[in-house]
Amino acid sequence: MGEKVWRIGLIGFGNVGQGFVRILASKKEVLYDRYKFRYKLVAIADPVKGSVYDPEGLDEKKLIELIEKEGNIKSYPRGKKDIDSLTVCRSGDIDIVVEVTPTNVETGEPGLTHIREALKHGKHVVTSNKGPIALAYPELKRLADEKGVMLRFEGTVLSGTPSLNLSLEAMAGVDINKIEGIVNGTTNFILTKMEEGMSYEEALKEAQRLGYAEADPTADVEGWDAAVKAVILANVVMGGEITIKDVEREGITKITLEDVKDALKNGQRIKLIARVIKEDNKVRASVKPERISLSHPLANVMGATNALTFYTDHLGPVTIIGPGAGRVETGQAILTDILAIHRYSS
Amino acid sequence: MGEKVWRIGLIGFGNVGQGFVRILASKKEVLYDRYKFRYKLVAIADPVKGSVYDPEGLDEKKLIELIEKEGNIKSYPRGKKDIDSLTVCRSGDIDIVVEVTPTNVETGEPGLTHIREALKHGKHVVTSNKGPIALAYPELKRLADEKGVMLRFEGTVLSGTPSLNLSLEAMAGVDINKIEGIVNGTTNFILTKMEEGMSYEEALKEAQRLGYAEADPTADVEGWDAAVKAVILANVVMGGEITIKDVEREGITKITLEDVKDALKNGQRIKLIARVIKEDNKVRASVKPERISLSHPLANVMGATNALTFYTDHLGPVTIIGPGAGRVETGQAILTDILAIHRYSS
Repeated sequence: MGEKVWRIGLIGFGNVGQGFVRILASKKEVLYDRYKFRYKLVAIADPVKGSVYDPEGLDEKKLIELIEKEGNIKSYPRGKKDIDSLTVCRSGDIDIVVEVTPTNVETGEPGLTHIREALKHGKHVVTSNKGPIALAYPELKRLADEKGVMLRFEGTVLSGTPSLNLSLEAMAGVDINKIEGIVNGTTNFILTKMEEGMSYEEALKEAQRLGYAEADPTADVEGWDAAVKAVILANVVMGGEITIKDVEREGITKITLEDVKDALKNGQRIKLIARVIKEDNKVRASVKPERISLSHPLANVMGATNALTFYTDHLGPVTIIGPGAGRVETGQAILTDILAIHRYSS
Repeated sequence: MGEKVWRIGLIGFGNVGQGFVRILASKKEVLYDRYKFRYKLVAIADPVKGSVYDPEGLDEKKLIELIEKEGNIKSYPRGKKDIDSLTVCRSGDIDIVVEVTPTNVETGEPGLTHIREALKHGKHVVTSNKGPIALAYPELKRLADEKGVMLRFEGTVLSGTPSLNLSLEAMAGVDINKIEGIVNGTTNFILTKMEEGMSYEEALKEAQRLGYAEADPTADVEGWDAAVKAVILANVVMGGEITIKDVEREGITKITLEDVKDALKNGQRIKLIARVIKEDNKVRASVKPERISLSHPLANVMGATNALTFYTDHLGPVTIIGPGAGRVETGQAILTDILAIHRYSS
């Protein structure tokens, strides 16, 4: 009861993994005082940044210092260095596997294998990796249930802004028949800048300059990222069984400055809306640019901010607005999920 | 594991109690299919609507039918009729006490005694009664912890729209240093109507006609109701120890149509803002009408809708928008809290 020391293994030490370790480094005492949460981060496995295992627990401050100074953790002064990710998934010395490798929405790998192995070995899994959840949620959920462990992935939709934990737990008992949202910050930023007068091309460049958009912006501007999140919401929140191919998808690349101005003239705004609808027990999803009225709950969500509106039977529409990405924001989602595992085990 | 049958006792069968029983009546099968939640509602105690205890479980549909036809449940065909509320709190036959008697913010009674007794007797308590929580949260929380039971009260702030479960659980791990909100639907409705051109008096009459405002509207328009919610947020979410007397409070009765128009002319809107701030480990709360910019996260919350913005360290501002009152909406909060108790016990 509160005195368990959770042993955490981290797979992936890119942005999200670093964001998570930064939070741990700054909150160790608070987490014990407030939640009676005790842990040791015992392993990190990343083929580029370096891997290390120390059953005594790694020093989060030292890890961050090395990343900042050297760009990797290869010179971490203690522990065993040649540990690989599958060993972390299978280790008898780890209770919770945090899987934060990059998303691949076609194969789900390497995350899918990591998550499957960790669950099979009776470990709780926390992830922000959208690929495995979008591709294999029903299978992974069944596996977790069979093994009596939790699979949590708040960070896959809206980073640390509660979306899954909000709809599945904080509103448990409602029926949700529709979800609408702005679930991609890059495109919302571009549309916001266009409203300020920039052309699509200028706005995209600005997004790239600020690090919101990748050099190849296809995943964002063609709606793929939003479509993956729609799949997760459809399957996890609304009990659907759809794949990304089932999502009716249109990006924002054809939106012109004239379209944006014309919408405004008519008291509307163009937003890239992800929508999931349940009708006659069938779940459908779409992602497309739409003109919405300025009084629509999502109309005033500007810049890189994200939002979701859940249409419910007993509460009507409930809207949450917050960040949709970011390394600390997603690291926060990982922490929230771990604290949930801790609460449910206390 | 899922096969426990929760035995529920309901104290108070007014609007919220009826809303809760209506939801149970319509969702019994869903609650089992989706959450493996099984229950029997074994007792209702209400000095006006009637009381009944049946260890075999009451029939929710019959109860609603009687309320609709006869205005009370005195002719319920089975069970023991002379049960009183304290017996429900102390009964060895009940696991969860649902306390939904009317709020009294001066004494907290009769809810405070009910909750204290139920906790002392080792029962989980779920309530939407603001009085006891605003007056005695630290004491009641300690008592619940001592007894190893849960005290949950999502319905005290924003009815079923997640506010406490959102900030304490779905965002566990963040630090919240400020909360701003529109937490009273009646005053927000009046201000919305004034923006449409009604005088304060006309808007108040319209609110009374629609059932949003009481014949004596003091609790709403003078900011008392919002102040109580600010106290709950301050003490529960931000670790404060304040009372309603500590809340800097100003109502909307002095707002004129001219004020509303003048604000609009300047790109602003007048809203009754509840605010809780933590500075230097000291928690302060206020409720007062303020001019906020149209781009403020709360500016577009219109009519009887409520909203809260949590200012956090890792996520920045996170805003939730939804209903703030209503019998089914608050009944939903009760259900969500009971399902949480079930989840944590599974």
